[in-house]
Amino acid sequence: MIRPPARVGDAVEAVDTPALIVDLAALERNLDRMAAFAERANVRLRPHAKTHKCAMIARKQLARGAVGVCCQKVSEAEAMVAGGVADVLVSNEIVGKPKVECLAALAREARVTVLADHSDQVAAYGAAADRYGVVLSVLVELRNAGDRRPGVDSGQAALDLARRIAGTPGLRFAGLQAYQGKVQHIRDFSERRAAALAWVEEVAAARALLEENGLACDLITGGGTGTYAFEGASGVFYEIQPGSYVVMDADYGLNLDENGRYVSDFENSLFILGTVMSRNSGAYAVIDAGVKAGNIDKAMPTVWGRPGLTYVAAADEHGSIEVSAEAGEGPRLGEKLRLVPGHCDPTINLHDWIVGVRDDTVEAVWPVTARGAVF
Amino acid sequence: MIRPPARVGDAVEAVDTPALIVDLAALERNLDRMAAFAERANVRLRPHAKTHKCAMIARKQLARGAVGVCCQKVSEAEAMVAGGVADVLVSNEIVGKPKVECLAALAREARVTVLADHSDQVAAYGAAADRYGVVLSVLVELRNAGDRRPGVDSGQAALDLARRIAGTPGLRFAGLQAYQGKVQHIRDFSERRAAALAWVEEVAAARALLEENGLACDLITGGGTGTYAFEGASGVFYEIQPGSYVVMDADYGLNLDENGRYVSDFENSLFILGTVMSRNSGAYAVIDAGVKAGNIDKAMPTVWGRPGLTYVAAADEHGSIEVSAEAGEGPRLGEKLRLVPGHCDPTINLHDWIVGVRDDTVEAVWPVTARGAVF
Repeated sequence: MIRPPARVGDAVEAVDTPALIVDLAALERNLDRMAAFAERANVRLRPHAKTHKCAMIARKQLARGAVGVCCQKVSEAEAMVAGGVADVLVSNEIVGKPKVECLAALAREARVTVLADHSDQVAAYGAAADRYGVVLSVLVELRNAGDRRPGVDSGQAALDLARRIAGTPGLRFAGLQAYQGKVQHIRDFSERRAAALAWVEEVAAARALLEENGLACDLITGGGTGTYAFEGASGVFYEIQPGSYVVMDADYGLNLDENGRYVSDFENSLFILGTVMSRNSGAYAVIDAGVKAGNIDKAMPTVWGRPGLTYVAAADEHGSIEVSAEAGEGPRLGEKLRLVPGHCDPTINLHDWIVGVRDDTVEAVWPVTARGAVF
Repeated sequence: MIRPPARVGDAVEAVDTPALIVDLAALERNLDRMAAFAERANVRLRPHAKTHKCAMIARKQLARGAVGVCCQKVSEAEAMVAGGVADVLVSNEIVGKPKVECLAALAREARVTVLADHSDQVAAYGAAADRYGVVLSVLVELRNAGDRRPGVDSGQAALDLARRIAGTPGLRFAGLQAYQGKVQHIRDFSERRAAALAWVEEVAAARALLEENGLACDLITGGGTGTYAFEGASGVFYEIQPGSYVVMDADYGLNLDENGRYVSDFENSLFILGTVMSRNSGAYAVIDAGVKAGNIDKAMPTVWGRPGLTYVAAADEHGSIEVSAEAGEGPRLGEKLRLVPGHCDPTINLHDWIVGVRDDTVEAVWPVTARGAVF
């Protein structure tokens, strides 16, 4: 783990770059808004910790009423439990002996739920639960037949697997995981809603089939930052699991609301702070933040609050910023710029530290406790 | 820092996934081959540590005759010096007080060279060198006028800046940095060679102008894994600075040699070891390695040694592998696959550990000592 880029009490201007900074006031407003939605919609909120990987942020979510967190990896769940989270849903199938052992061991420390889409996983979970003397709650993952995700793609397959789980000592059949990734990023509001609602219907049908067969679903969980409002208000989902809403990113910022404007439920609270380190051309500036400081798999970073500056290309350690006439003379050598990450989850996973700022002062330096927790 | 995914002595099959594994025999052959080239060409070798970020690998390069390493960031250089490297070229312009202070402080511990493309940088380097009582060697960075990189784009500008460096107490004008990024990845051999040789001529002209004006270049350095043979044999470059050759990746694997075949100077020694964690369709398998385990900014990972399997899409934690008829029944649930990283440098930077394997056994678990060293 590399030294922190700032100390509490520093001026933001003194933060070493590139660094991940979070605007604490905007973060808190995002946390409050999602908590208020969940309360209004009478749906449980289990934010996804794969976005922030930071126990300090997870605890803020719990303090506002979240029932626990989702994690995508066992090692990520370990970091969250070590950081004070008592209820973790590992929203993924866990395959391989080292991982399944750790999963069962973790269930001694916290409430642990996990997914299955195959009977081999169920058998491995049951054997490990038995070895560690714990009970693992298991959800069947449903997937949209068109998606290349994990999951079973029919109610009948879900029923078969649920029976297998219910009949395995050490396991408890808990319900359904039904998250759709691609739908989150459909830009048009009506199309996004239609896709989400069609999915809600499929999930309702699967639930009905399970219940007709005596397998009650205590939990039906899914929904992300792009669709949480649909699943949350559906009456079919008992829980929503958005992640990106805490920080947002350039990609999510392209989603449109019902009025055809960019979504504004949540604010950009996360930025890559960078320094212009070369400025030998009027047409562009080079910033010290490339793909090792911000992931570009979904979208390029954008330059925050500086019209006319466009981040157009990322090398490993350099970003090229095009300077148009609108930007006047453009940024000076040594100037610090805030970039909105293109894709928040993998960007946070690049950094060991999140620097919390309020106005112009560093108020917090949080370790990204589950950074690199990929297994 | 997350716990290591393996222990020395483990069977490779027992490594937790996704994990970065390196085939030690292939790594050693790559190290030997580049060292042999440098000796043959009578050019100094200063491998780029931004690729591996691992002091253990840097020391193997030094043991085979490398004169030191390149680093791209000050914090990366600190990690290399702490790991036993006595001579570091920070092949980047360093802008901002915290970094420049650290750079000068590091020059108390090791021989440090750095780049400049602007007189403001020279002034800051000089002031810091004075404060710390050290001498910093400074190279002027030359860039190709068409590239959006740092650097000055004419011999005259290089001369002006070199004079400024030579006239600044605490600084020593050391020569020219002349690396071209894009040329490394030109697929066609003749085009790549032509671009590299045209660049060599430009650099030779700049050197001549400097020397005519009494500014000798002790060092002219550049060249990467795609072009090292051209700069190395040119007589104009005194040093080459390839990085990726130690491990290679899917992107470099697309370069062609003089016979129109894929380059074979170096071998793929680095793999992302992943586990098939969902296999509910004949058409695809889901592996537990997505963009948090392997960067996809230049190319997708490829599946090693398994014809008919194609890694077609990466989500945050999942990779979709298409299974064609050539692959027969395809991989089974729980099967481990080796992926060749799409782009090695940012992929290694995702991982805290590199697991060194020989045959089927783990022989080394190396910390990626400069992981996350982005500032």
